[in-house]
Amino acid sequence: MAQATIGNSEFDRDTAVTARPGDQGVFDAHLSAGWTILRAVNGGYLLATAARALGQILPHPDPFTITAHYLTPSGPGPAVVRTDVVRAGRTMSTGQARLLQTDGAGQEVERLRVTATHGDLAALPDDVRTSAKPFAIPPYERCVGRADGPGVADAAAFSSGSTEITDRLDIRLDPRTAGWALGEPSGRGEIRAWFGLADGRDADPLSLLLAVDALPPTAFDLGLGGWVPTVELTVHIRCRPAPGLLRIATRTRNLAGGFLEEDGEVWDSEDRLVAQSRQLARVR
Amino acid sequence: MAQATIGNSEFDRDTAVTARPGDQGVFDAHLSAGWTILRAVNGGYLLATAARALGQILPHPDPFTITAHYLTPSGPGPAVVRTDVVRAGRTMSTGQARLLQTDGAGQEVERLRVTATHGDLAALPDDVRTSAKPFAIPPYERCVGRADGPGVADAAAFSSGSTEITDRLDIRLDPRTAGWALGEPSGRGEIRAWFGLADGRDADPLSLLLAVDALPPTAFDLGLGGWVPTVELTVHIRCRPAPGLLRIATRTRNLAGGFLEEDGEVWDSEDRLVAQSRQLARVR
Repeated sequence: MAQATIGNSEFDRDTAVTARPGDQGVFDAHLSAGWTILRAVNGGYLLATAARALGQILPHPDPFTITAHYLTPSGPGPAVVRTDVVRAGRTMSTGQARLLQTDGAGQEVERLRVTATHGDLAALPDDVRTSAKPFAIPPYERCVGRADGPGVADAAAFSSGSTEITDRLDIRLDPRTAGWALGEPSGRGEIRAWFGLADGRDADPLSLLLAVDALPPTAFDLGLGGWVPTVELTVHIRCRPAPGLLRIATRTRNLAGGFLEEDGEVWDSEDRLVAQSRQLARVR
Repeated sequence: MAQATIGNSEFDRDTAVTARPGDQGVFDAHLSAGWTILRAVNGGYLLATAARALGQILPHPDPFTITAHYLTPSGPGPAVVRTDVVRAGRTMSTGQARLLQTDGAGQEVERLRVTATHGDLAALPDDVRTSAKPFAIPPYERCVGRADGPGVADAAAFSSGSTEITDRLDIRLDPRTAGWALGEPSGRGEIRAWFGLADGRDADPLSLLLAVDALPPTAFDLGLGGWVPTVELTVHIRCRPAPGLLRIATRTRNLAGGFLEEDGEVWDSEDRLVAQSRQLARVR
């Protein structure tokens, strides 16, 4: 198989949106079963699909900051993305997207509501005064993935049901944050991993939106099982990622009242902090 | 002066919204000059005003997660908040608000776009498995405020212009994060402070939205001057705050390409993490 490229890959095909002729700002999409966990469509994949539509209506290419509120569970199949330009400025622009699916009664049901402010990452000055340092993680070869036994593989697929999304991702967990897969969660609420797309497609701002929601939930490392549905996810894309694998660390500091936050940071192969994310999720 | 209370205070009066009879979901507001810095209206105050309108249309009282995109600069004077219910669920509901002002040509101009998912903080279970610990800060009496000399007072008012907002806030900075006021920024990008409203009103979820955007910018501690306009601000309200002063810490880890994130955490008098915030801001 030839290596996939940005624009020609599973991820690009499965997040494609098609403008409806004569229907300004409306795009058709098809949510692929390939990005499901159990029967739920991955939230990062949904966000990337909505963001692709926003990229077509806004004058600036890159989501600098994007927020999704997840309203109802999405399923594989047709979807429509309805977009509006909120404000088009000189260096930044803001848009809104609603991703909807038609229910059994023929009614459109909104799945997520997205607001994004876009800019042009390539136009930013080169100044970097970042105090954050890349987190420590063993080399890719010493991290654990699907090939390392059914325990990790099953857990990475959230224990049961469809493993569709795991076929499409190349995730290698830091062994120190993978103990939960063997029944020994650390209790720290941290997951660290190498991340790539299985077909070798390099990262871009759109795939970063997938990446920040693609690791096993930090709740697993807290010793909690089950599904942890996202209420809201915000991602800041700070830099266009260099080719190569990403390193992602996610962390939960505050589990209270049945909710937790999950903070993510994504570093590229040139040691740049390319994305920061935070989600509020519900513990079931 | 009698101590102000939740519901009867400057903050409550200045964030009040009045439903327009016969115009579903539309509220009139008056942005007070009392919450300005130079001539700009504070972003947290704007968010609280929009949130108050959302609280009137949604079936659940408290913003669990709320995001604002700041589109154009607001000024003191009349404003209108146009709201929509996005989804009303059993335990959570989502709404959208647009805060607008009329320009010189009589056109409504959108100032900020807000999306929030509400719930009922009082209905949450008591489970807390939080690994975060309150940050260290000297006692209130040993922190520095307006009374400690024109250097700190002026800097806290962002160096020049109107000090209106500082009259309404009781902010005491950790001396270790106030060096910038004397020309000696630490370079760490951290601000820690005690926070209250000057009239003694206790905190509630709405005033937490103000609190997370009320400290001097972390950019000052990085040695940068000038205005740092917020592009987007997301706040998670995790717990109803207990009476008494709040402690707020804000931090910037990544200043790059002319943008920075500012992460905030707010602790109440009972050592509970009551709010977490992140904003993307632009360095001028």
